[in-house]
Amino acid sequence: MTNLYSSIHPKSLAIADLGCSSGPNTLLAVSELIKVVDKLCGKLGRQSPEYQVFLNDLQGNDFNTIFRSLPGFQGRMKKQLEAGTGPFFFTGVPGSFYGRLFPTNSLHFVYSSYSRQWLSKVPNGLEGNKGKIYMAGGSPPSVLKAYYDQFQRDFSSFLTCRSEELVTGGRMSLAILARRSQDPSSKECCYIWELLAMALKEMVFEEGSFSIDRLEVFEINWDAYHNEINLPDAFKDSGYNVAQCMRAVAEPLLIGHFGFGEAIIDDVFRRYKAIIANRMGKEKTEFVNVVVAMTKKG
Amino acid sequence: MTNLYSSIHPKSLAIADLGCSSGPNTLLAVSELIKVVDKLCGKLGRQSPEYQVFLNDLQGNDFNTIFRSLPGFQGRMKKQLEAGTGPFFFTGVPGSFYGRLFPTNSLHFVYSSYSRQWLSKVPNGLEGNKGKIYMAGGSPPSVLKAYYDQFQRDFSSFLTCRSEELVTGGRMSLAILARRSQDPSSKECCYIWELLAMALKEMVFEEGSFSIDRLEVFEINWDAYHNEINLPDAFKDSGYNVAQCMRAVAEPLLIGHFGFGEAIIDDVFRRYKAIIANRMGKEKTEFVNVVVAMTKKG
Repeated sequence: MTNLYSSIHPKSLAIADLGCSSGPNTLLAVSELIKVVDKLCGKLGRQSPEYQVFLNDLQGNDFNTIFRSLPGFQGRMKKQLEAGTGPFFFTGVPGSFYGRLFPTNSLHFVYSSYSRQWLSKVPNGLEGNKGKIYMAGGSPPSVLKAYYDQFQRDFSSFLTCRSEELVTGGRMSLAILARRSQDPSSKECCYIWELLAMALKEMVFEEGSFSIDRLEVFEINWDAYHNEINLPDAFKDSGYNVAQCMRAVAEPLLIGHFGFGEAIIDDVFRRYKAIIANRMGKEKTEFVNVVVAMTKKG
Repeated sequence: MTNLYSSIHPKSLAIADLGCSSGPNTLLAVSELIKVVDKLCGKLGRQSPEYQVFLNDLQGNDFNTIFRSLPGFQGRMKKQLEAGTGPFFFTGVPGSFYGRLFPTNSLHFVYSSYSRQWLSKVPNGLEGNKGKIYMAGGSPPSVLKAYYDQFQRDFSSFLTCRSEELVTGGRMSLAILARRSQDPSSKECCYIWELLAMALKEMVFEEGSFSIDRLEVFEINWDAYHNEINLPDAFKDSGYNVAQCMRAVAEPLLIGHFGFGEAIIDDVFRRYKAIIANRMGKEKTEFVNVVVAMTKKG
């Protein structure tokens, strides 16, 4: 962001958060971005740009709730920032980020966190995967390949669309949920992260529009509150925290795609919580995160 | 629109509908605009621009319903238009149009229909207006002045904000609900429309950013289905049609501002329907509409 702003410094900075969802975190990344740019402007003695923030998610996302939270959010932002920052213009952009969402050369910065794992559709060729809801131990190689091919097609579309939408020199930062092992059912962390970096770099290189500036891999405990001090009692039950976190993601899928009745969902996640709590005491329970920052080539 | 596109013809055409609401009409004006530009492109042998459509209304508007209707709308649009039209990018912009909503010099065309009568706030100085819900027969002059001053302040803010947001040569078209008489409680159409034109022209002139290209005044029957042939039975009751139309506007005000209980609302509008039906047989029952088109000066 620092490099982007130093090199481009537009009067109006267009930022897009792709897959923004709707909840307490929706505006977190954007507000951090604005603070960084604002600080930089102060250092460089430049006037703060106008910020146009595009919040994107699928048509079914609850944009109403985001929009209703904006006046409060903007009030809090103004208090935290220097006088003369902004103004901020917030807009909602409904649609799939695997297609075009913005006019050509209209964005300066694209951010997307924990969204790349959502494919554009259920891949074809999952017939051999009976009894499983994703790639798991025992899934035949054809199923693994079907998911991998779909990811490749989708990620490639994603890069192409964004390269059309970003200005030359524009930046993109993606936080991706990943695994260390090539075997999608493996629990072992036996592969070094270079493998991942290689795969991602290869795909970005093949698509051709971006150069990678930075790639970081780190682990996060399943329980987001793992290392918190002074945690309120409500968040001290790691099994509950993780089950709730997964429920936010999985419930719509279990109901919409797998036809689970709403009545048994509570029971499913009660059992899930118990299983998680049991495992968390015995195994290494961490997500692997990859953050990759890239620049659109001229 | 023809003049605008001939003179500016940007690669990406940014259109804003201010006060878009949420319902079957929300996308009507925008789709007509796109059709006009598309036809013009065909005539001029130019490639169709990318369309970026900004739909604006207050934070409480139901954007979710608009967004969910977009895939169907976009499918219908594609069928009606030439191959190679678009793409269309739709975004929702929550906030009051009496403040800034868009970055400087970012819009080409602003459209706003039946929204200018919504003031930014209830004016101060209505103490003498007991027992009335707006300017009515018997309202003291101080009340009329309070409403008029508020409208002037608001309309002036509106013009200033839009002049900052529109590119030079950008256009704005406003459809405004009006009256022919200077007396807000009058039912007579005794004043010629030049009075209205003068008042509006004066305000635009005073603000200074726009030139008026065209100003039309016309009447519309209270019942939007007034002259329709082959009308389904459901829409043949004019009293019902008008009461429903007014209810869509007035119900949130009666509940939110005047504290009407939801329970009695049905009764209010049943009585209202009867009163309207009675009057429609006896009086001239038409709205006066003013449509004004203007261009941002260089």
